[in-house]
Amino acid sequence: MDDVHANSGCRMPSINFCSQCGSEVEQKIPLGETLLRAVCPACQMIHYQNPKIVAGCIPEWEGQILLCRRAIEPRLGLWTFPAGFMELGESTEEAAARETLEEANATVTIHSLYGIFSLPHVSQVYVVYRAALQDLEFGPGEESLEVRLMSIESIPWEHLAFPVIRETLRRYVEDVGTTHAQVHFGTVSPSRRSVVNSSASWLSNGPSPSINHPAE
Amino acid sequence: MDDVHANSGCRMPSINFCSQCGSEVEQKIPLGETLLRAVCPACQMIHYQNPKIVAGCIPEWEGQILLCRRAIEPRLGLWTFPAGFMELGESTEEAAARETLEEANATVTIHSLYGIFSLPHVSQVYVVYRAALQDLEFGPGEESLEVRLMSIESIPWEHLAFPVIRETLRRYVEDVGTTHAQVHFGTVSPSRRSVVNSSASWLSNGPSPSINHPAE
Repeated sequence: MDDVHANSGCRMPSINFCSQCGSEVEQKIPLGETLLRAVCPACQMIHYQNPKIVAGCIPEWEGQILLCRRAIEPRLGLWTFPAGFMELGESTEEAAARETLEEANATVTIHSLYGIFSLPHVSQVYVVYRAALQDLEFGPGEESLEVRLMSIESIPWEHLAFPVIRETLRRYVEDVGTTHAQVHFGTVSPSRRSVVNSSASWLSNGPSPSINHPAE
Repeated sequence: MDDVHANSGCRMPSINFCSQCGSEVEQKIPLGETLLRAVCPACQMIHYQNPKIVAGCIPEWEGQILLCRRAIEPRLGLWTFPAGFMELGESTEEAAARETLEEANATVTIHSLYGIFSLPHVSQVYVVYRAALQDLEFGPGEESLEVRLMSIESIPWEHLAFPVIRETLRRYVEDVGTTHAQVHFGTVSPSRRSVVNSSASWLSNGPSPSINHPAE
């Protein structure tokens, strides 16, 4: 559910009318602020627009991970881990588990935070967890053509749906085989260079190393 | 800027009119979805509402942290670390640094992720970083009465603005003095029990321990 919305890569639509009273809005900088906002001249409501959270997880089972092949545009036919827009009234963990159930008919236990990635060009923030698949009962939900448990070696790198999926899985594969904790954060851009850091040992007090690499 | 909006604790306002064309919306479940949405019968636009991200940081300087005393409602006169709503087109790290500049006139270098906390009761997600204060030039911005560098021992526990601020700082104080990495995640509720986990060593592959404690 809500996956087209989550992954359409759309910018925020402009606000022309007040969603409260239906009046035509004005673009102005409210008192005490610095940015232009859509403000209703009739009821004074300020219509803020903010980035959206895409919550997802990497479901694991005995060294393999569960990926879904998209049945919907954009990127129909390409692979992703389960992820979608967070809904009102839920936590990011609940959102990640719900999306996994919807897209892969799979039940997971969220057990650790994997990373948080900003996509400023589409005003989205991905929050990605690692999760334990509870059993081998899974299969394509409405938005998936196919759901498959894959070894690290068989990840279809050339057929991943979005740069942030590739970036997350690339790091995941790097991390497998290391023995220290890593939680990643940073910015993923669509066509230039992404910068992702790791909060591996935050008590070291120094800046984390920046890792630059080409993203598609 | 935008801090009243960030911390007002408000639920999302209902949508009565289409922000695109001004028509009165209908509440219906769109095809392929499961939740009621505000849908425009004229232009077919679906108006999604999603949780908002509050980005903040704990600015550090030689064992002390920078806190701000709020000059605005709600919780006027109470203490918080710098935090506020993320804007379109920025990363969570940029948002945290910007809020620190606005609220405390302080320049920081974000160096590690501290935690991500869901507040489902107000549909907010706090993303909190640790940051290095670049120098001792700071002072109250428009939304602060006072900005002070404090030792861990002098955190005003009885005068913190929000449960999520208390929860974050409580964990922060616990972590100081330990030597292993911790990135926290979980849910903070206003009046019942909060559940926060840590992704300290995600390669352990087991579930993180849940820690329950009373929150105000």
